[in-house]
Amino acid sequence: MADGMDVLPLGLWLDLLGTFVFGVSGAMLAVRRRLDAFGITVLALAAALSGGMIRDLALGATPPAAFEDPRYLIAALGSALCVFFGHRLIARLGKPVMVLDALGLGLFAVAGCRKALLFGLDPLPAIILGIMTAVGGGALRDLLVSDVPRVLREEVYALAALVGATLVVAGAALEAHEAWTAAVGVAAALLIRIVSVWRGWHAPRAPGS
Amino acid sequence: MADGMDVLPLGLWLDLLGTFVFGVSGAMLAVRRRLDAFGITVLALAAALSGGMIRDLALGATPPAAFEDPRYLIAALGSALCVFFGHRLIARLGKPVMVLDALGLGLFAVAGCRKALLFGLDPLPAIILGIMTAVGGGALRDLLVSDVPRVLREEVYALAALVGATLVVAGAALEAHEAWTAAVGVAAALLIRIVSVWRGWHAPRAPGS
Amino acid sequence: MADGMDVLPLGLWLDLLGTFVFGVSGAMLAVRRRLDAFGITVLALAAALSGGMIRDLALGATPPAAFEDPRYLIAALGSALCVFFGHRLIARLGKPVMVLDALGLGLFAVAGCRKALLFGLDPLPAIILGIMTAVGGGALRDLLVSDVPRVLREEVYALAALVGATLVVAGAALEAHEAWTAAVGVAAALLIRIVSVWRGWHAPRAPGS
Repeated sequence: MADGMDVLPLGLWLDLLGTFVFGVSGAMLAVRRRLDAFGITVLALAAALSGGMIRDLALGATPPAAFEDPRYLIAALGSALCVFFGHRLIARLGKPVMVLDALGLGLFAVAGCRKALLFGLDPLPAIILGIMTAVGGGALRDLLVSDVPRVLREEVYALAALVGATLVVAGAALEAHEAWTAAVGVAAALLIRIVSVWRGWHAPRAPGS
Repeated sequence: MADGMDVLPLGLWLDLLGTFVFGVSGAMLAVRRRLDAFGITVLALAAALSGGMIRDLALGATPPAAFEDPRYLIAALGSALCVFFGHRLIARLGKPVMVLDALGLGLFAVAGCRKALLFGLDPLPAIILGIMTAVGGGALRDLLVSDVPRVLREEVYALAALVGATLVVAGAALEAHEAWTAAVGVAAALLIRIVSVWRGWHAPRAPGS
Repeated sequence: MADGMDVLPLGLWLDLLGTFVFGVSGAMLAVRRRLDAFGITVLALAAALSGGMIRDLALGATPPAAFEDPRYLIAALGSALCVFFGHRLIARLGKPVMVLDALGLGLFAVAGCRKALLFGLDPLPAIILGIMTAVGGGALRDLLVSDVPRVLREEVYALAALVGATLVVAGAALEAHEAWTAAVGVAAALLIRIVSVWRGWHAPRAPGS
């Protein structure tokens, strides 16, 4: 049931929070690799903005939101600034890159899938675009420092994004409350990802490999 | 000579076959690296879909075909599934990643060049876009597992795509039968690539390097 | 003050020179890694064309200029040819990849920022797009041969692009002579980058990292 709440603000909300959180994950990785202030900024921007840009380019929504709305850049640059001065505090969270990455994963999976549905994509492509939005920024971040991206290396990573995006499609089909649907999608992706790391869940390997 | 056959079905044909074949090459590489079911799916999707997406984004054909037509996703996901259960069978082909990669290279070089011509690009840019379509998916696949992409590492790789795409341009200029032109282009690229690996052909290095 | 000179030729000028110069940097890197003629061509094209393509895709200016105007491809292929036969001559320049990369960085930062302003982007996004144009080609070039991109590894790299792009925005705000503004922007970026390498300037690391 639509509730008179404007659709875009919720999407913007998810986008900006995801941008900030992924930006922090990129900047923390840069600090851990002992990069300088510019390396921190570049890795924060790459992690924060590239998932959403891939999504907007794929939807033909050019220029991407990150270039039209200054709040995206402010969120990404703000994340670099927070990490530059506060990285020791953030590091005390324990596995901060993993947890922030998991939250960003959920936020972007939901935001990407919602925007794809708004642009008229069918459910399956919308889910795939949600996953691409969610994993794109983190994959570029990892590639830039020559890591094999988390999405390949770690178990149950793509699954978390898949579940978040699928809940958005299900919510839309059931005409559920949009903000609740989004919250449930983000929470499900975050939980699946964190519990899978914590409990060491493994996805099956191909038989005989 | 145009023959009343609709242009798009042939292009779709080439695209879907290339998508499946590249998907298998990505999934086989993932199995060889002992990635889990999600890693296999992600690498299959990346190899299968990114070349065509680069092409469609460059042509301004958004959303990319892979998001509009569910058959692309089915082909890519199907390739992951086939490999998950059948990788030992496929591995008996001998050098399966190389052979499938060569077939996908030819299919995408031809499909990319044809679509570029349909969108009104000039011959030289159409050839370059054909090569980008052909090498893009494989390059991303290799980058994601931290390999130097085949297109740089291995001899005569880009040449095979170049020949396939050039034959499409020549066929269009001569108004040759479209399906035959496509078949000749794919076969030429496949043959050049496989023979070059088999015979150890080398492209020249820069003098004195 | 506008001076009756057409805006696009200057942009084209910057683009083509940047394309050639980045192409040479890519081809020189390929020679150093002992890649063959095709590897040289692919790395030259990737370094030369991808920054501008990212820019044009982000602006929705499709097909990208590199596919519409044959001079881009000629510049990129010409750079590969020059390096193939003249790499020993170029290598005598001392640090040729670094110097050419610095010049290309300045040219593309200015060209990218100018085009973004022409397309109506606000100053901050225009600066970021200028930086992306400038660092994109070099980052892909480095990623393709499995290096951590210079933009992360080396100090003051992104800063040089930032200064070049910012001077363009400042020049536009002051309605300064366009060609002079561009020249000052390119020169500033080039100087900052070269002096920073020469003097070993360091950007600050995060406190306590």
